[in-house]
Amino acid sequence: MISSQKALEIILDKTVDFGTEEASFLEAQGRVLKEEIVADRDFPPFNRVSMDGIAIDYNSFEKSRRSFSIEGIQAAGSEQLRLQNTENCLEVMTGAILPKNCDTVIRYEDVVIQDAVATITTEAIEKGQNVHSKGKDRTANDVLIRKNTLISAAELGILATVGKSSVKVARQPKIMIVSTGDELVEVDNTPFDYQIRRSNVYTLVSLLKRLGIKADNDHIKDDKAVLKAKIGSYLEAYDVLLFSGAVSKGKYDFLPEVLDELGVQKLFHKVAQRPGKPFWYGKKQNVSVFAFPGNPVSTFIGCLKYFYPWYKKSVEIPYNHQGKAILREDFTFKPELTYFLQVKLDEDGGLKIAKPVVGNGSGDLANLTDVDGFLELPAERTEFKAGETFPLITFR
Amino acid sequence: MISSQKALEIILDKTVDFGTEEASFLEAQGRVLKEEIVADRDFPPFNRVSMDGIAIDYNSFEKSRRSFSIEGIQAAGSEQLRLQNTENCLEVMTGAILPKNCDTVIRYEDVVIQDAVATITTEAIEKGQNVHSKGKDRTANDVLIRKNTLISAAELGILATVGKSSVKVARQPKIMIVSTGDELVEVDNTPFDYQIRRSNVYTLVSLLKRLGIKADNDHIKDDKAVLKAKIGSYLEAYDVLLFSGAVSKGKYDFLPEVLDELGVQKLFHKVAQRPGKPFWYGKKQNVSVFAFPGNPVSTFIGCLKYFYPWYKKSVEIPYNHQGKAILREDFTFKPELTYFLQVKLDEDGGLKIAKPVVGNGSGDLANLTDVDGFLELPAERTEFKAGETFPLITFR
Repeated sequence: MISSQKALEIILDKTVDFGTEEASFLEAQGRVLKEEIVADRDFPPFNRVSMDGIAIDYNSFEKSRRSFSIEGIQAAGSEQLRLQNTENCLEVMTGAILPKNCDTVIRYEDVVIQDAVATITTEAIEKGQNVHSKGKDRTANDVLIRKNTLISAAELGILATVGKSSVKVARQPKIMIVSTGDELVEVDNTPFDYQIRRSNVYTLVSLLKRLGIKADNDHIKDDKAVLKAKIGSYLEAYDVLLFSGAVSKGKYDFLPEVLDELGVQKLFHKVAQRPGKPFWYGKKQNVSVFAFPGNPVSTFIGCLKYFYPWYKKSVEIPYNHQGKAILREDFTFKPELTYFLQVKLDEDGGLKIAKPVVGNGSGDLANLTDVDGFLELPAERTEFKAGETFPLITFR
Repeated sequence: MISSQKALEIILDKTVDFGTEEASFLEAQGRVLKEEIVADRDFPPFNRVSMDGIAIDYNSFEKSRRSFSIEGIQAAGSEQLRLQNTENCLEVMTGAILPKNCDTVIRYEDVVIQDAVATITTEAIEKGQNVHSKGKDRTANDVLIRKNTLISAAELGILATVGKSSVKVARQPKIMIVSTGDELVEVDNTPFDYQIRRSNVYTLVSLLKRLGIKADNDHIKDDKAVLKAKIGSYLEAYDVLLFSGAVSKGKYDFLPEVLDELGVQKLFHKVAQRPGKPFWYGKKQNVSVFAFPGNPVSTFIGCLKYFYPWYKKSVEIPYNHQGKAILREDFTFKPELTYFLQVKLDEDGGLKIAKPVVGNGSGDLANLTDVDGFLELPAERTEFKAGETFPLITFR
């Protein structure tokens, strides 16, 4: 049995490059950018009018001119006009290119217009005001978005602006999620007294969807031959296999044996943690196998604690920045195991406060609906004091 | 001009019930539950074996029996067996129903099996151990998930467990996002010097996708007749119209006029904030119209600050819990406006720290890629000190 820390180290040492693919920029949200995005031209690309009003040559204002004949209108999206007489002005609209021979914009609020003459009603005019100068934000060829950025709405706006209608992103891994256990029936079936419905595969599907991964799923009966045949074919077709169940000491826990027979190299089996101790992890060439214990909370925390950072490191986004929270009340846990304490989060003036909501152990799926995440309490201690800070893993 | 706080109050007073619809439980992630989910039976539904090992009648152990003949195996998913002779035992698997006449499970680690006889190797046995009793977590008809819960992986697992393959959720609003401005060209076009590409509609599409809303989008030229015809038809077909641009003082800012002519009641125009001051908001019957100023950062913060809470309150999930962060360095902002300061977030022992990354104003879209959100600095102050806490709006 190894420590949770060591287990994570081993897993993070085995990340996989899933390669890249092209995606439409509109589908790229939540994907990981795999190219540098550079400015195709200056930002802004022209001296851009930033207020509706009139544009003048500041020299005229400085020479005490306050009334300006209006030569015309510079609309947004129109070719650049030229101020013919620098003692005149042009009306200008937000988003328009600043007309030639103009350098300063006075907003309508500070102007009175009568008979095609604009008279400035304030003395507080600065040369160059209300003009967003060409290249002020960024210069052509500046890097706007770094490679390995997770694409949010902000990045999507930049992709649109520079004309990247198609963009190179990390390919998502192909994942098969498999449940085992003859006590399981489908969601739309009515179970007998001694049966329950399948739920772990669906929580896993949902946790992967949060990462933008669409996973397949299957259920395999506790029959060694069937298990071996199916897993054999999945090892050919997928990047990752996630299992829930069949990794403990039961008579029908064939999984470790079958994986061994299929040439999957076991990297560890059993981690000093609660819940989720019988966790099995291995690899066959580039296929990664995460076999979580079948209790609902064990599968849940296993995915968050181990699969999530493995995936994030594989696609090269930050993976070890999970945040911390402050324990709200004293808590005791005696066994020498890392304990994943279920907590409800609250906020108080910039502080994250975690209130324990313990539940009835790894089988108590219903308790998860009352919490926001887990505090990770270290194995080497038994007493945890209110006010202490511990690593936090959230899932909402 | 009204305050940002007043603007939000008006908007939150005008929420809309979008109704409900049935969704497959697998598609329900991120949706808002519109029914109570109750336990269809006890949780667990039977006395459930929670460790692989042997099941005995504790009375025998108490009467000093340590070796037990094995009568058979109770597998998970099999009908309940009966221990024929209470001086014997049955092997039992995790997830199985506890056999009749048994009350205690001893895990394999504490047993030696030879010639079909299991001998217990520890004295530390408690009556009832390793049995997850019927109904311990929840009782049949207990409420497992409350109405108006945002469905995460945890709730999805519960839906599966109770057999809710179809579930009642809030209908998502039908939304049309419209950009205006003749300076805008499509993403895959090459703009002239005085043009830029459309990007605001796509950042809005992306911000709505984060809420699970699939929005339509369109671009309308700065032509009053076209604007009026198109908006007229959109008012018939959508629950919400979001605009970017054409709400300021420009010659071609027809939007407020057109909306008025189409019978949309203006509830306010202009909010004492930066960026995003010329924000226009109104309603026509059940259609809500958010018209944001066309500068990229104005549109962005407008959607997060006003549309997000309006949507959340409409579907009845918490909307005013946006969290807070601690300002990292002194900051000055003189105008009497609510200022949305762009910040990069960092974490330090459970504390959220916000570092200002100011950028070049509302036109500087590129700056958003360097930040994680906005600190909302109140209008009535000008000096903001390092260490002070302010409301935080994030978007990643």
